[in-house]
Amino acid sequence: MNARALVNGVVSESLDVGDRGLQFGDGLFETMARVAGCVRRLEMHLARLRGGCERLGIEYPGDDLLKSEIARLGSEPGRAVIKLIVTRGVSARGYAASAGAPTRVLGLHPWPQHPRDASSAGVAIRFCDLRLPDQPALAGLKHLNRLEQVLARREWQDPAIAEGLMCDARGNVVCGTMSNVFVAREGKLVTPSMDRAGVRGTLRETVLQRARAMGVAVVETDDVSRADILRADELFLTNAIIGVWPVRQLEDRQWIPGALTRRLIAAIETVPSA
Amino acid sequence: MNARALVNGVVSESLDVGDRGLQFGDGLFETMARVAGCVRRLEMHLARLRGGCERLGIEYPGDDLLKSEIARLGSEPGRAVIKLIVTRGVSARGYAASAGAPTRVLGLHPWPQHPRDASSAGVAIRFCDLRLPDQPALAGLKHLNRLEQVLARREWQDPAIAEGLMCDARGNVVCGTMSNVFVAREGKLVTPSMDRAGVRGTLRETVLQRARAMGVAVVETDDVSRADILRADELFLTNAIIGVWPVRQLEDRQWIPGALTRRLIAAIETVPSA
Repeated sequence: MNARALVNGVVSESLDVGDRGLQFGDGLFETMARVAGCVRRLEMHLARLRGGCERLGIEYPGDDLLKSEIARLGSEPGRAVIKLIVTRGVSARGYAASAGAPTRVLGLHPWPQHPRDASSAGVAIRFCDLRLPDQPALAGLKHLNRLEQVLARREWQDPAIAEGLMCDARGNVVCGTMSNVFVAREGKLVTPSMDRAGVRGTLRETVLQRARAMGVAVVETDDVSRADILRADELFLTNAIIGVWPVRQLEDRQWIPGALTRRLIAAIETVPSA
Repeated sequence: MNARALVNGVVSESLDVGDRGLQFGDGLFETMARVAGCVRRLEMHLARLRGGCERLGIEYPGDDLLKSEIARLGSEPGRAVIKLIVTRGVSARGYAASAGAPTRVLGLHPWPQHPRDASSAGVAIRFCDLRLPDQPALAGLKHLNRLEQVLARREWQDPAIAEGLMCDARGNVVCGTMSNVFVAREGKLVTPSMDRAGVRGTLRETVLQRARAMGVAVVETDDVSRADILRADELFLTNAIIGVWPVRQLEDRQWIPGALTRRLIAAIETVPSA
């Protein structure tokens, strides 16, 4: 019998209320695609988590332990989402209180119900009003302080809108609520830098690697305006679960999935469509 | 037998790992002083919590329910800290997933060990390096996204330093990691506004009320520079647990607790010293 949830290696769905993950959002997470029993880009996820733990001063639980616990969630055929949370652990009240060992929370989740043709036909998206401020101390990390994303995602209910783009205080685009964004223009691939805000997605890194390997010029910059987005020859979103979603509509602009987007989709080991 | 922890009214110290408080920091908290069986400024705490729930779109559990649960933590003599967390509740994975009822986590904690003479002799403090960015959508709220405070508090270990002041991106002072800050200068009382960042503390509100009642001019502004802090005639910190702490040292500047600070301490129903 495979576990559906493990807390510190024990089959459980409950957490100590003194855990700093709850108290302060003092931790990190990874959301991983498991397809046909295999976790996609597992090494990249663990490397990002290890790097995040180093930046926050949280003890990294170790690749071997995490891999053995992920294996205990089973290897059924089909698709599933594995979410791994690592927090600084349980402590007394107060920011300064020293925690014990870090806490590991692993959960197996159903594959989300996204539009069947999202990867082929593209998705409709919007701009969000809520701004992401610059915070270099946390930029790039997939940390547990996600209220801004929660609030941005609450700005729309229309199920036809698949994602919302978030801007920084200057009005430049940073990312989607749950995805990274790429602009193709005049043969170049442009994406926000993640140095001031946003999450450095694992699939974002893979797309950058593949594009460079194809000889495509890649630019990471903090100056992607809304106008740049709307002027894009091609526009697409990435995350570890959705893979690559071409954007087909944003405000008055429409696109059909472009040649570079399709080449990148083909070059990436994405999750097969349902 | 009084409870030490209640989760949704049940004696428990464990939380569902699917709770959005852990997953996203999607919630709020209050930290309250209970002295001789009585929770100080309970109505103010609940009013702030209700206001925060309205801003985040979280269903407020209601004064009567929260008061009855707080009462179940008992009314022993002496001092204790009551921490109340309200989250959006348990949901499936994803920012957009709709949660059920909000989650209530109540805990009874020992009174912290602060220097005995902090309220009379004052405390030594420092400036933190980590900057608090402007985020009007969350400013003023006591929400669960506290990684910035955790990281700022990790900047020093010296137990002689009681608190660190945090600045915004322009270098103006916003608050302490766990407190609000007040500057007295030329008879006026100045404090950062909490409109762009920081927590609108309950004792901060009380101090502002008392000062106005004394006829002291009060200024709430986003332009309190480090120089303004170091030029202060008097400088003090507030929070619901520590009460009012005069500052006696910051960098090269030293103070003795001033007349206005002492008048305000006398005017506020503070927690008696040990």
